[in-house]
Amino acid sequence: MWASLLPVGRDPESGGYRRFVWTAPELECRAWFLDEARRRDLEVERDRNGNLFAWWYPEGIDPSVKGVLTGSHLDSVPGGGAFDGPLGVVSAFAAIDLLRERRVRPDRPIGIGAFAEEEGARFGVACLGSRLLSGAIDPGRARGLTDGDGRSFAEVAAENGIDPDTIGPDEELLGRIGCYVELHVEQGRALTDPVGVASSIVPHGRWRFDFAGEGNHAGTTRLADRRDPMLAFARMVLAAREAAERNETVATVGKVHVTPGGVNAIPSSVAAWLDSRGPVDDAVRRTVAEIHEAARAGAGAHGVTVDLAEESYTEVVDFNLDLRDRVVKALGGVPVLPTGAGHDAGILASRMPTAMVFVRNPTGVSHAPSEFAEEDDCLAGVEALATVLNDLACG
Amino acid sequence: MWASLLPVGRDPESGGYRRFVWTAPELECRAWFLDEARRRDLEVERDRNGNLFAWWYPEGIDPSVKGVLTGSHLDSVPGGGAFDGPLGVVSAFAAIDLLRERRVRPDRPIGIGAFAEEEGARFGVACLGSRLLSGAIDPGRARGLTDGDGRSFAEVAAENGIDPDTIGPDEELLGRIGCYVELHVEQGRALTDPVGVASSIVPHGRWRFDFAGEGNHAGTTRLADRRDPMLAFARMVLAAREAAERNETVATVGKVHVTPGGVNAIPSSVAAWLDSRGPVDDAVRRTVAEIHEAARAGAGAHGVTVDLAEESYTEVVDFNLDLRDRVVKALGGVPVLPTGAGHDAGILASRMPTAMVFVRNPTGVSHAPSEFAEEDDCLAGVEALATVLNDLACG
Repeated sequence: MWASLLPVGRDPESGGYRRFVWTAPELECRAWFLDEARRRDLEVERDRNGNLFAWWYPEGIDPSVKGVLTGSHLDSVPGGGAFDGPLGVVSAFAAIDLLRERRVRPDRPIGIGAFAEEEGARFGVACLGSRLLSGAIDPGRARGLTDGDGRSFAEVAAENGIDPDTIGPDEELLGRIGCYVELHVEQGRALTDPVGVASSIVPHGRWRFDFAGEGNHAGTTRLADRRDPMLAFARMVLAAREAAERNETVATVGKVHVTPGGVNAIPSSVAAWLDSRGPVDDAVRRTVAEIHEAARAGAGAHGVTVDLAEESYTEVVDFNLDLRDRVVKALGGVPVLPTGAGHDAGILASRMPTAMVFVRNPTGVSHAPSEFAEEDDCLAGVEALATVLNDLACG
Repeated sequence: MWASLLPVGRDPESGGYRRFVWTAPELECRAWFLDEARRRDLEVERDRNGNLFAWWYPEGIDPSVKGVLTGSHLDSVPGGGAFDGPLGVVSAFAAIDLLRERRVRPDRPIGIGAFAEEEGARFGVACLGSRLLSGAIDPGRARGLTDGDGRSFAEVAAENGIDPDTIGPDEELLGRIGCYVELHVEQGRALTDPVGVASSIVPHGRWRFDFAGEGNHAGTTRLADRRDPMLAFARMVLAAREAAERNETVATVGKVHVTPGGVNAIPSSVAAWLDSRGPVDDAVRRTVAEIHEAARAGAGAHGVTVDLAEESYTEVVDFNLDLRDRVVKALGGVPVLPTGAGHDAGILASRMPTAMVFVRNPTGVSHAPSEFAEEDDCLAGVEALATVLNDLACG
């Protein structure tokens, strides 16, 4: 099952994945999901927001009983690893196989979700599918989000059979889900056991800085006559690191667009995206404010302007304590740890009890081609997920 | 004639041009060139390197007499202006029209050249067409140059009817050209008369800096564990400005590629292009060495590596003094000025006497959509070019 998914959207040179929502490789992953669901006689459902679900309704089950949802996402960051997302979906199918092998007969439906645009790599807002489902983003704003080619979410969604006018919270579907347990590869090195459970997701967000100056000839324009946005941008990058150090947060500039982007032309504008996260909301807010202040000072010094827009922000998410304790107990007392990474489970936590099971990451590398988890740890993850589903869906 | 060329390759939003060699808009400009040539019964010639020529051989002329070449280029930087390049080609056709109206009968052929890839916007080396023709670049190196999509010059040239095995210096063609006079819009504000003549092109070059670190997750990777190439790059951008100030040169970073370029991923690598120019070779060399030193220090501080490659370098070009004096005299004593911009006339200067006529640029803006020249000044340019061609091609 894993082998059939591995080649999809993989760059043969770097080994990195590029599975942006509703591009060919991601559509191929969706087709794989539907295949695996049908092969197991699971009932497939696509919600109004493009999220996929595969439900196991054991015979004779009371249809009004709320289900237990597991799963993750199939999209990737550019140049991402093989595990971030797909591991949770593959493990979910494998856990159902285990339960069936063991002739477990759940009293509640078990569902596998594959949430759309978790990485926000195409339309800029992370966890877009779960945000729409749970009402955490205004549908009008979502419709207007654009990808790197300037195409709107509404347009791309419509092409993929989704009516953009009907996107948004789906109370009927939410009402059918009792809780959500997401399995995910750990993305740092904090987990030293094969499997752990999440305590919280630290506050995190994305901001866009737009520096605007004056495009001109790189050879004939005197330094004193320049209004070069690249210089203000460079100051902001260094200020981001310093602000993160001061506030004990992290801050990253990983995406930049330079216009026009010619070797022999002073740029007219530079757009830069900031990702910042930290243990508490205040620290993240202070980090971003300090970076903004430094960006303004840098812009002023070089005769350019800077605009700041918050693309998304998620306050600290403390996972449901009862569910967390139950999962930890079912697993015989595994480590509990916070994570610096955002997840659909963090978004859905506002609407239902959610929990996360992490699989050890020996190098801590993630969002990169060399992201890795040992096979034994992945199998331990499947076993753990089966145990948790068994506990939650039976009796 | 000008009007028919204006819409080609123009972005309706920014007003900027994007005419990269052998892309659709540039091919349309080439078709326009051939049309204008045929309309005037000029003899069209495409050399082995993709440069276009349109020759006026007045009747009864001795075919062994060397011709007078004028012209410029049709390609543009990304988001370029309307004048840089095309003004020289359009003015050349218009000047021939003027000479014919005035019943001038030259004793030598007059040619109009349109040189390929002057901006180096597609394959990275400026004046690639004139470099190949004159032997200023190794054909093997040219064949291996790649564009932004990773396609080689050899591959793209072959698709456009050029045998990549035969590119390189063309002594037979060079032997038929007595001198080259290029008309071009001025690219700074130094020229306050409608028309001027170039004394020299200042030394200039392009360098590529490759910063390599470690891609990782923007949320889960501690600051201390990061090897973030973006930080070393930012230091290099600021160092470039400081080095240029110290050495009285200019230095510009106008093009950047970030890999993988995800908002929530620490980049694994950043490639940045430096353009630097100055009054003397030493100052430019010192500028680049100081930037390289700062880039190395920045890389060391952030645990990343940096590689530097020189993509092109052109030493100071002093235009032929006899030809320059003759052109200035023919124009009745116009201003003489150096330029910070590179031109095909600078490359061809190693193989024949060359000269340049500049048309005033009221704002000094170039390589940007707002690049501009007054109509009266353009007409003065055509008149000046006709006068110079008359002087050089007759008697």
